[in-house]
Amino acid sequence: TLQYHIQCRPGDVASIAIVPGDQGRVPKFVQHLERVREVANNRGLISYTGLYHGVPVTVTSTGMGGPSAAIVYEELANLGVRVLIRVGSVAGLQPEVAEGENVIPYACIRDDGATAYYVPENYPAVASPRVFQALTTAAEEAAFTFHTGINWSHSAFYHRNPEYYQRWARKRVVSMEMEAAALFVIAALRGVEAGFIGTCYANRAEQSRGDAVDLSVESPQREVIQEGVERSIIIALNAAESLGTRL
Amino acid sequence: TLQYHIQCRPGDVASIAIVPGDQGRVPKFVQHLERVREVANNRGLISYTGLYHGVPVTVTSTGMGGPSAAIVYEELANLGVRVLIRVGSVAGLQPEVAEGENVIPYACIRDDGATAYYVPENYPAVASPRVFQALTTAAEEAAFTFHTGINWSHSAFYHRNPEYYQRWARKRVVSMEMEAAALFVIAALRGVEAGFIGTCYANRAEQSRGDAVDLSVESPQREVIQEGVERSIIIALNAAESLGTRL
Amino acid sequence: TLQYHIQCRPGDVASIAIVPGDQGRVPKFVQHLERVREVANNRGLISYTGLYHGVPVTVTSTGMGGPSAAIVYEELANLGVRVLIRVGSVAGLQPEVAEGENVIPYACIRDDGATAYYVPENYPAVASPRVFQALTTAAEEAAFTFHTGINWSHSAFYHRNPEYYQRWARKRVVSMEMEAAALFVIAALRGVEAGFIGTCYANRAEQSRGDAVDLSVESPQREVIQEGVERSIIIALNAAESLGTRL
Amino acid sequence: TLQYHIQCRPGDVASIAIVPGDQGRVPKFVQHLERVREVANNRGLISYTGLYHGVPVTVTSTGMGGPSAAIVYEELANLGVRVLIRVGSVAGLQPEVAEGENVIPYACIRDDGATAYYVPENYPAVASPRVFQALTTAAEEAAFTFHTGINWSHSAFYHRNPEYYQRWARKRVVSMEMEAAALFVIAALRGVEAGFIGTCYANRAEQSRGDAVDLSVESPQREVIQEGVERSIIIALNAAESLGTRL
Amino acid sequence: TLQYHIQCRPGDVASIAIVPGDQGRVPKFVQHLERVREVANNRGLISYTGLYHGVPVTVTSTGMGGPSAAIVYEELANLGVRVLIRVGSVAGLQPEVAEGENVIPYACIRDDGATAYYVPENYPAVASPRVFQALTTAAEEAAFTFHTGINWSHSAFYHRNPEYYQRWARKRVVSMEMEAAALFVIAALRGVEAGFIGTCYANRAEQSRGDAVDLSVESPQREVIQEGVERSIIIALNAAESLGTRL
Amino acid sequence: TLQYHIQCRPGDVASIAIVPGDQGRVPKFVQHLERVREVANNRGLISYTGLYHGVPVTVTSTGMGGPSAAIVYEELANLGVRVLIRVGSVAGLQPEVAEGENVIPYACIRDDGATAYYVPENYPAVASPRVFQALTTAAEEAAFTFHTGINWSHSAFYHRNPEYYQRWARKRVVSMEMEAAALFVIAALRGVEAGFIGTCYANRAEQSRGDAVDLSVESPQREVIQEGVERSIIIALNAAESLGTRL
Repeated sequence: TLQYHIQCRPGDVASIAIVPGDQGRVPKFVQHLERVREVANNRGLISYTGLYHGVPVTVTSTGMGGPSAAIVYEELANLGVRVLIRVGSVAGLQPEVAEGENVIPYACIRDDGATAYYVPENYPAVASPRVFQALTTAAEEAAFTFHTGINWSHSAFYHRNPEYYQRWARKRVVSMEMEAAALFVIAALRGVEAGFIGTCYANRAEQSRGDAVDLSVESPQREVIQEGVERSIIIALNAAESLGTRL
Repeated sequence: TLQYHIQCRPGDVASIAIVPGDQGRVPKFVQHLERVREVANNRGLISYTGLYHGVPVTVTSTGMGGPSAAIVYEELANLGVRVLIRVGSVAGLQPEVAEGENVIPYACIRDDGATAYYVPENYPAVASPRVFQALTTAAEEAAFTFHTGINWSHSAFYHRNPEYYQRWARKRVVSMEMEAAALFVIAALRGVEAGFIGTCYANRAEQSRGDAVDLSVESPQREVIQEGVERSIIIALNAAESLGTRL
Repeated sequence: TLQYHIQCRPGDVASIAIVPGDQGRVPKFVQHLERVREVANNRGLISYTGLYHGVPVTVTSTGMGGPSAAIVYEELANLGVRVLIRVGSVAGLQPEVAEGENVIPYACIRDDGATAYYVPENYPAVASPRVFQALTTAAEEAAFTFHTGINWSHSAFYHRNPEYYQRWARKRVVSMEMEAAALFVIAALRGVEAGFIGTCYANRAEQSRGDAVDLSVESPQREVIQEGVERSIIIALNAAESLGTRL
Repeated sequence: TLQYHIQCRPGDVASIAIVPGDQGRVPKFVQHLERVREVANNRGLISYTGLYHGVPVTVTSTGMGGPSAAIVYEELANLGVRVLIRVGSVAGLQPEVAEGENVIPYACIRDDGATAYYVPENYPAVASPRVFQALTTAAEEAAFTFHTGINWSHSAFYHRNPEYYQRWARKRVVSMEMEAAALFVIAALRGVEAGFIGTCYANRAEQSRGDAVDLSVESPQREVIQEGVERSIIIALNAAESLGTRL
Repeated sequence: TLQYHIQCRPGDVASIAIVPGDQGRVPKFVQHLERVREVANNRGLISYTGLYHGVPVTVTSTGMGGPSAAIVYEELANLGVRVLIRVGSVAGLQPEVAEGENVIPYACIRDDGATAYYVPENYPAVASPRVFQALTTAAEEAAFTFHTGINWSHSAFYHRNPEYYQRWARKRVVSMEMEAAALFVIAALRGVEAGFIGTCYANRAEQSRGDAVDLSVESPQREVIQEGVERSIIIALNAAESLGTRL
Repeated sequence: TLQYHIQCRPGDVASIAIVPGDQGRVPKFVQHLERVREVANNRGLISYTGLYHGVPVTVTSTGMGGPSAAIVYEELANLGVRVLIRVGSVAGLQPEVAEGENVIPYACIRDDGATAYYVPENYPAVASPRVFQALTTAAEEAAFTFHTGINWSHSAFYHRNPEYYQRWARKRVVSMEMEAAALFVIAALRGVEAGFIGTCYANRAEQSRGDAVDLSVESPQREVIQEGVERSIIIALNAAESLGTRL
């Protein structure tokens, strides 16, 4: 049946969906697809379905934050999607994670704001090993470097307490963003496989070293960011292709 | 300075901002404004500024869920906005709240997914009495009926346990939606005044009476809904006008 | 039936009850009432019922702390009371709240020690807008100044950690006391309307500025305090009158 | 210095204080004392100091609930009191605890509403072994029977969910009341010794067996209750005497 | 029936069991017993049953930590054991608790890692008064000095934050170890009586005074420790004897 | 320096350690090693170091439960161990997990009783992808079938509430045991890589289907179990070999 928020119906979506947060990134995927069509566009949730190297793929934007993204993940699962790959932005939490670099986390700290209402917080937000491996293999085959580790999905972008960031930086956490933990938890509960690749746009560990947090972010149009985003798109699509041929 | 997500600058926005969740509702406000211009459009966060009966008003969409909306509320406060009025959708939790009817809550249960990271959950999510009164007075002056009471802001739209809904219905809670508690809490912490008016699109207390929840929602294009939305827009704009003349 | 703690029966109490914490303040109300009688006196819970400007009003003392006050609020609700107005003491948490000044809060932080056992702590402790407005209107009509904002109801009068007080002072919280949150929560759950007016006897934000908290309180018999208390009594009674004529 | 709530000064109180909740029970103690004087009477907190068999003893009422009683316990400790013995009422939670019978618990479940703000809830509310033993020995020497075990100190007298009571009845908890846990925790933190003896006025396990809770309580003036109360007073005073001769 | 972990059967164990954590201490008990036999030895859980001054006593090692010890306490209760006495090691948290000295706590802070899954953390971990008294009486009769007070049972031996230790040292807590809280809680829930005597092997309050914690422990073979352990064994066995003759 | 509990010193252990819970399983590993020696044996924590196909490997038993095992994991990390592989027992939570079958989980629900004191419970307990892959590859290369998924590490073996088990069985959780979550969390915090392979000895989902839980476990000496254990040992050793050649 028609899904209320994404306004898609069975048949509109492929078995593999790529789920960026930002609707502005959807066209960057579309240009790699063939026989592609806009399926729906409602509340900033835009869906296209097409073929990547012959494998059917849907791209749907999720909006920001766990509660918004959870709605999209759930509605795609309702329609039979079996693999979800998030492509998004992260802030680095370790000194070696520089702007424009890619991160492929295998698990998340759950401060996503949505999944605590599904299962207690001690349930792990973990990528499907098969999707994680497809992403890292795709990166390696393209000779793209990347970071891996545990990512922190949080819900308070404008938190102004330096310790909010430093406490996780001290615990070896590699990066932070807002939507991956909800992806991993909801996917696991629904029996869907999920993975995530991010591009670093700032380093919050550096920005929170002093008495106040510098929450500024430079333009995402910088070339170093755009190149990282493009790499993440290629990696995600190639991973989708390899997974799709095995579904 | 330029706000990262809403892409607005000081001077782009009025002292009073109306913040619907759905970007699709922004044009419904714009048609009531004069000398109106699109200020920015980024990630589904669309801003227009214009005059309503001579009072400067900005309309900015927030996306769905507390974490997304919190970003917008914070960035508007950063730019000097002093009054925030949310216009959105609610599901009824009492039998008397029918589809298309309006609700003007004065406080919220905090399951918004964002503000627990700002202040402990026992801090109240409460409307500014002055904005609440402006909204109810505007409704009364227009001879529009409305419900009031405590609203529940939650973050798990697809929760499938009937008790999730019934426990609050039994406690006299009038309605539920996803973004108002974040509005009330962040506004209070930032020294901004805030209020909320919603339009009912479904009754979750009725839909969760049995062993399973019926989460279906009929088309929001139904006339009864569209009329309620239009009333909420008039109420919000008239409240903004009355508040704006006193700022 | 006979209420166990307050020892009142149906018919003993009016539809509007004023509920001070301190039994010593009951006589200050009584002297404003006509045709007044002592209804009961048990465990320091003293009840009088009489007429104020022709409107029936009951005054019942609650004792200190949420658990004690909750018993009284519940038993009055059992007897059919429809409006509860607390008149009490507060400590200021903002520099502008001076001794003897009045505060009319519209919501509370819930550390009252009782209501967490009724509903989760994210449910708001909020005054009834109608009673809040009756109180502020009564104050304005009498040309009495007052503060408003969010109040903190706590349960550990002798907490000796300065940060216990400062953390809320930093969050714009206007005042603190011990019984209002229980009033607001229990009233909302019982379908009763409630409001609160306090008189400042000390400023805990000032007293907790250093490494240790100064918990001393000067005599409540000071003239500045007694004048504030008398104003709060007049405001509460006038609000009761205006509400009573509409019941 | 003068204590704000109990209005006592150093020298006004003995090293051993008996702390009933109900001010109405203070005279029952006073009639056993010699050279006794009323020390203070404020907010329902009434203090007398006198001699019992030559040992100085103070009796101070605490009001109902942990937050009120905590204030009294703290102020007595401020004045140098070294032993606190609560004498109060309990509801039975085991079938064998009948009306009028005495209970001397050695530890409490902490739902007292006050001490969670002092120390985390996993800190035990436990009687001082020396005071517990003085009470049980006094009872045995008087040939008075009594129950012992773990008591539940709660804060929501009017809780209407049967499971609220049954869950602890199933766990062998002997009785419930409202002020003993705060006594045990505050005493331990202040380096004071404390014990408690209660008299049963109702059996909540029996009253909550069905779908609804019967919260009624028959008159505390019944003879069976008055006899139990008188026994508890004798036991407490004899325990105070034996402890006082060793201080 | 055969207990899965301790591999004992009904008839294998006495009504009184002594439960040291360290299997290496079992032989120290055995040498005091007559007609003693090894009952079982599985997973480091070793059981002997014999006679002490004619009273049947079982000694069973529990392993380290609440979850391991809880299994042993439960299986012994399944077999009909009615008294459990733990003999173990503690670290001191007050300056006066020196290495080799004995501690007989009457209650514990519950960070044992197991019992929070049985009952909420505000349920007290408390020794049975009768067993506590048997232990202190045995110590006094042997003219052995000891400390008493509230003990902290924790689960993170290698915690490296000084405040982890200091916060409880400041609250008058006498000692810390890992298995006593689980003993007290499970015993109370099962209707078994329990007590604990420990020997101090280090002082964590002293070791955590600076910016980092010194978690080193000198050899437990030191004479001062061995003497303390031997005293604790004598006390426990004598207490068992006195309790056993009354069962 | 000498580690207090495992009694090992630097040089005693290899870079890869296999950590079974049960000391009784250590000999089963030892028989596969060459040039092997017993390094230490204290409190049931037994360590052997030898060569497996030329790769140095240590085997150390951990005892039962998170708090006990955490001590061993920490002490091995203190000595420079870089890979930890747990080999243990699990109960199945899905119908398809039969006795004797192997499970290789990639993440755990954290009810381990120890790690909540290190990091908040929303931090994921996740296997190192590299060790997880080494284990699954070793299983596949040996043509051994296995289950994978999310495992639940709990701390209350004798929990008697069926819902305690069923709530996770309904959430697709594959298995349960007591020590893997502590392994994953402590390893991640220490910068060590970790994995886990278990053998099923019972199916708790089946045993908790009715009104009561059947907690019985048949003899672990059954052939079907012994064969599963032997397979898990081969898989762990082969994974260690493949990881060791890359260190």
